[in-house]
Amino acid sequence: MTDKTFVTWHDHAVDRPRGCVVWFTGLSGSGKSTVANCVDAKLHELGQQSFVLDGDNIRHGLNASPEILEPDHGIEFAQRFGLGFGPQDRAENIRRIGCVAEIFCSAGLIALTAFVSPYRVDRDRVRIAVTAGGTACDFVEVFVDTPIELCEQRDPKGLYAKARAGEIKGFTGIDAPYEPPEQPEVHLDGTAPVELIADQVISHLRQNGKFR
Amino acid sequence: MTDKTFVTWHDHAVDRPRGCVVWFTGLSGSGKSTVANCVDAKLHELGQQSFVLDGDNIRHGLNASPEILEPDHGIEFAQRFGLGFGPQDRAENIRRIGCVAEIFCSAGLIALTAFVSPYRVDRDRVRIAVTAGGTACDFVEVFVDTPIELCEQRDPKGLYAKARAGEIKGFTGIDAPYEPPEQPEVHLDGTAPVELIADQVISHLRQNGKFR
Repeated sequence: MTDKTFVTWHDHAVDRPRGCVVWFTGLSGSGKSTVANCVDAKLHELGQQSFVLDGDNIRHGLNASPEILEPDHGIEFAQRFGLGFGPQDRAENIRRIGCVAEIFCSAGLIALTAFVSPYRVDRDRVRIAVTAGGTACDFVEVFVDTPIELCEQRDPKGLYAKARAGEIKGFTGIDAPYEPPEQPEVHLDGTAPVELIADQVISHLRQNGKFR
Repeated sequence: MTDKTFVTWHDHAVDRPRGCVVWFTGLSGSGKSTVANCVDAKLHELGQQSFVLDGDNIRHGLNASPEILEPDHGIEFAQRFGLGFGPQDRAENIRRIGCVAEIFCSAGLIALTAFVSPYRVDRDRVRIAVTAGGTACDFVEVFVDTPIELCEQRDPKGLYAKARAGEIKGFTGIDAPYEPPEQPEVHLDGTAPVELIADQVISHLRQNGKFR
């Protein structure tokens, strides 16, 4: 029996123009999510398709903690696959986010990611995976450079206070390092108005041919 | 010091209409990827935004095996986070794919997934997570119902031959179970022409208000 109906459609897969990955990095409270969401809104107004990946949509699902996984999946599964905040867990957290951003990119969207991502090696691995991978997407690293004093003053989630009180261990900037990017594509002054620095990102994307 | 520039933009996040998750399930060789890619192409022609998640873009990145992870990340990391084919690994594989599909859905796309996903409990967990989660997406289960004899005859990747030869253990349909959906939203005859059954999916999506 021949089965001609079966094998044809892989070749007809939609050939989409690539998007790109815009990777925001900076201290907690530096303004990453705020700026990324502002860029997202501006891109939307400009008719560009984008999406923000941040803690809200990642840490409760894809990169859930053991505590979140346990009720549905049991303790053994939760301990094996849940992510904590150790160095390996952080690396895996960033690796998975990079993979999802790459998939968004291959779907033709501009993927904006907003995670502390404190380690240079983790960010560089994502850069390599995204740019050299099968989809060969562009990677735009955006450093939201905000003095830790201001981040701590903002402390939107009360995390610095907890870290200072010793309630959180290994908090970036307090008792864990932040390694700033050495050559970010975009270097933002996190003390400047959000709209202004969001426009810097928009300008970079536009000038580098990231708009459709 | 007040810092009025900082806190404004979270409220301005783009309010996108939701997409939906279209979950293809069926034996290896049943035609899941073929039909999903055909649906994707048809949606594209109809001006709908969609994207296919399948082994090609998942198993080499997000859900990579230990062997793929080891060169970059070392053996300890690879063994901890790499996914194999044991029952827990398969459950985690499907869980992560469901999370990514949900993110695509919240970005406004129709997410088409094409994985064997043999266990009912894993698919039902995804359904619950997707429909009851923060994004409250719709979940459309599509059963590509193809007799195993035909799947094995097609054997596009030569996997049945390897499973029969004992080179692959725990192969769905040979020495591991496939649990068909009990009430799939769409039940396709995998022996029918691809275009025809792809149109059935398109009709379902259109009639159930999944088009923009």
